Amino acid sequence: MTNKPSNPLKKHIQAFQGCLHGGLIKESAEKYGIAENEILDFSANLNPFKTPFDLPEYGQDFMKLAAASYPESYNYPDNRYLKFREAAASFLNSGISSGTRLTKENIIPGNGSTEIIRLFCQCVLNDGDKVIIPYPTFGEYEIQCRVQNAEIIYLPQEKIETITAEELTNLGSKILFICNPNNPTADLRTREELIRLAEKCETAGTVLFVDEAFIELADPRQSVCDLAAGSKFVFVMRSLTKCFEIPGIRLGFGAAHPEIAEALNSARLSWNLSPLQENVGAALMEMDGGVNSDYLKKSRELILKEANFLKEELSKIWGFKPGAAVTNFLLIDISERTIKSTELAERFAKNGILVRNCISFRGLGEDYIRIAVRTRPENEKFIKTISIVFDEWAKDFADNELKSALTTHKRGLQQNKRETCEYYPCHFDSQDCTFCYCPFYPCKDDRGGGKYIQSSKGGQVWSCAGCYIPHIPSVVEKMMEGLMEEGETEEILKKEWNEMILPIMEEKDAEHVLALCRKIKEENDIKKRKET
Amino acid sequence: MTNKPSNPLKKHIQAFQGCLHGGLIKESAEKYGIAENEILDFSANLNPFKTPFDLPEYGQDFMKLAAASYPESYNYPDNRYLKFREAAASFLNSGISSGTRLTKENIIPGNGSTEIIRLFCQCVLNDGDKVIIPYPTFGEYEIQCRVQNAEIIYLPQEKIETITAEELTNLGSKILFICNPNNPTADLRTREELIRLAEKCETAGTVLFVDEAFIELADPRQSVCDLAAGSKFVFVMRSLTKCFEIPGIRLGFGAAHPEIAEALNSARLSWNLSPLQENVGAALMEMDGGVNSDYLKKSRELILKEANFLKEELSKIWGFKPGAAVTNFLLIDISERTIKSTELAERFAKNGILVRNCISFRGLGEDYIRIAVRTRPENEKFIKTISIVFDEWAKDFADNELKSALTTHKRGLQQNKRETCEYYPCHFDSQDCTFCYCPFYPCKDDRGGGKYIQSSKGGQVWSCAGCYIPHIPSVVEKMMEGLMEEGETEEILKKEWNEMILPIMEEKDAEHVLALCRKIKEENDIKKRKET
Repeated sequence: MTNKPSNPLKKHIQAFQGCLHGGLIKESAEKYGIAENEILDFSANLNPFKTPFDLPEYGQDFMKLAAASYPESYNYPDNRYLKFREAAASFLNSGISSGTRLTKENIIPGNGSTEIIRLFCQCVLNDGDKVIIPYPTFGEYEIQCRVQNAEIIYLPQEKIETITAEELTNLGSKILFICNPNNPTADLRTREELIRLAEKCETAGTVLFVDEAFIELADPRQSVCDLAAGSKFVFVMRSLTKCFEIPGIRLGFGAAHPEIAEALNSARLSWNLSPLQENVGAALMEMDGGVNSDYLKKSRELILKEANFLKEELSKIWGFKPGAAVTNFLLIDISERTIKSTELAERFAKNGILVRNCISFRGLGEDYIRIAVRTRPENEKFIKTISIVFDEWAKDFADNELKSALTTHKRGLQQNKRETCEYYPCHFDSQDCTFCYCPFYPCKDDRGGGKYIQSSKGGQVWSCAGCYIPHIPSVVEKMMEGLMEEGETEEILKKEWNEMILPIMEEKDAEHVLALCRKIKEENDIKKRKET
Repeated sequence: MTNKPSNPLKKHIQAFQGCLHGGLIKESAEKYGIAENEILDFSANLNPFKTPFDLPEYGQDFMKLAAASYPESYNYPDNRYLKFREAAASFLNSGISSGTRLTKENIIPGNGSTEIIRLFCQCVLNDGDKVIIPYPTFGEYEIQCRVQNAEIIYLPQEKIETITAEELTNLGSKILFICNPNNPTADLRTREELIRLAEKCETAGTVLFVDEAFIELADPRQSVCDLAAGSKFVFVMRSLTKCFEIPGIRLGFGAAHPEIAEALNSARLSWNLSPLQENVGAALMEMDGGVNSDYLKKSRELILKEANFLKEELSKIWGFKPGAAVTNFLLIDISERTIKSTELAERFAKNGILVRNCISFRGLGEDYIRIAVRTRPENEKFIKTISIVFDEWAKDFADNELKSALTTHKRGLQQNKRETCEYYPCHFDSQDCTFCYCPFYPCKDDRGGGKYIQSSKGGQVWSCAGCYIPHIPSVVEKMMEGLMEEGETEEILKKEWNEMILPIMEEKDAEHVLALCRKIKEENDIKKRKET
């Protein structure tokens, strides 16, 4: 009998999960019932200055290139891809002030930069080989290493700054992946830092793989492509997707030592680029000035301005902590907010804006979202949508709390959290906690005792600390009676506000409630004085 | 000290040699100084009926598709590629009369079919795993298996017909590659044959990988794509390159069991097709009738007619043995000719026609060329060019022989091959062999004794057996005197022909030569009579 497997695929491939990415416009359009062209995509990081093909002043004509490439499509492409590789070398050289000049012998063309990551991993990694992936970072390194069944060593990004050659040697990894600037944190490492790291890697026999997919939109002076040309232990990857806004053309390339490049060019797919891809890539990279073309300089100016605008606006929002504003995306720490990144992204999507929820980035959990830097009107729309999203969220949250309060009340359960809540009593002893979250929040009516306060981040937030009304047992009892009537919750709440809460605030009614409030206030004041 | 390697690439990748392919139009144009559009490419096998984009009656418009795809290029492609995969499934179903129907869940899109071969090998083969590659066949299987460092078992194609399940089990290979129809032999296996082979493979736990890149141009009824949909041990690969004449678009796909397809779709590049590729692929495969569309039916009719025309014409040429005429290419056995396939291909290329020299196909050595089936005027041009090529070759051959004769004569060496030549005496005893190859061949003048004879293949060939003139020592002596004069060889030969050979033939001069000829003839006749 043979020991025949039931599935011919390698074990680790059988249940393989691909990489999660942003930019799911079509899927989102289907899911949320929004027209594709009405979706504003902040989840994919592209050049907001627009593709040169849409800026007539740069003289690039997509349809002309398509027409020229069409007759070439009847023949197999010349798979030396000389035109593309020469253009890529010149493009890289335009950003180098010193160091090795690159030639076409250094260039490996790719059907998108992911093909370059895949090719490199395939040609370097044997089953079980180790690689270092600092986290959080772009997900494709992990995916392509997993395809090769490599063992992944995850190190925090900060560790890379202090790692020694000895430590690297002891880790014995084949590749160390650096994304510069790093996706999704937008942290940019300097060229000097990378030169030092490259020396340590060389000593350890670890290839420093530098993904410079966003470097043209951040600071091309920090590129180390010249190092790659001179050392077999530095490999640089570039992408045309982001800087020229052409994710649907699929263009990237690798820059490497000629010996490495020759082997990779032999081992890559025989024809991985179409004539159209080659022609588009060459045309864009041959624009006067290369990485310092008028187009890319203006792109960087726009991005810097808008990234800083977004950072400033986001900083004003309570619980939003934006990261570095150096390139065309921003990471936002939302860990102070109750809402999780998955729910936040979902709520943005329902409003026609895609943001990246970051759960697929190791180490970020549900505490971060990543957004692209776009044009001013789009960025303003994003900022405005934050308010809408949070208003909707707060309303839904209060609705849910209210439903939960009603259910608990119907079951006759005691709404006093004395035993279970760590914040009890947040207002006063023997308070009723049925409305732990007030169904009227934020009422913004200071006659009840609530007021706007300064948040730690500088913004304003409505605080209910001084309002006792919805926690007084007799008030709660009366509110519950009303809420349990048949009808729309919103209508009932409006009615209750007008008929019960407002009279208390306007001191027209419910004298005993007001007396109770005054009494609670006095007791709280005495307690405070005693404590100090 | 670390045991640091000097090159981070895997050993077998460091000196990797890619696959040799035909269709090197640009390289040939550079090499032979011919304009690209003047080259007639018989080395790449494409549909001679032309791409549907060039046949207005089929309503396909490349520029319209390009224009529609252009705005999609600003966004990342929807990498589920639903449109392409659905079109591919329907396309396959159009050729199936029974068996499992395919859905998009069976389809894996590829940036050309080579990406599918690569992906499958990457997901199945570990270092050192065995694969069976019958030879001769398409080179990419070997290349992609070598990228995975697999161990290749080469079996002759004929062996596959009789191989047993037990033998397959004992060979213990992960994959058996079948190209149907087979490139370069054009042999077509029947569906029944492949079903039997699939059963044996299933028993042995070997995946039967069937490359059906040319099936639409041969006989789509022989496809086994439905088997792939139903078994994890059959995988079918298709290409749009050949049947729609679009090698520069890069489109192919795999058909597999849904579980296999799902894993491969997860493990493939995140975005391996551009919107343009997806749109072109879907449009072409959605043509009414699928594999039996009017376009593909007419393509097959044209190909069958032209393949048979070529086969018939080639059969008339001495030493040309064409193989099966079932699809859009023909393998020609030229082993009976003195010329090697590399030189023949080179000579064709100098005349602006590319043919495949076949040296990269295991088992074929320099004895075969492969040609595409093209349109009638192109095929006629090819046939005509054969005469030109062989005339040039014969002339160059004679030139070289003449140079060699002169060199030998100058050195005073004896031009009698009595001791060394197995054919001596090919004309008469004590003949002079200086002009083993006559510098006037083929003079086509029967007055010297030469004449056209029937070749074994049915064609006509000029035979010098009855001519003794250039082997008579006194004639040779006189010819050498003339040839050693200063001047252009061609001019000198013309002069010698006119002043010396022609008078002998016209019996105007050189009575002693004629007498000698008559004497030799008599002696030869006596010898022949004695022998019989």
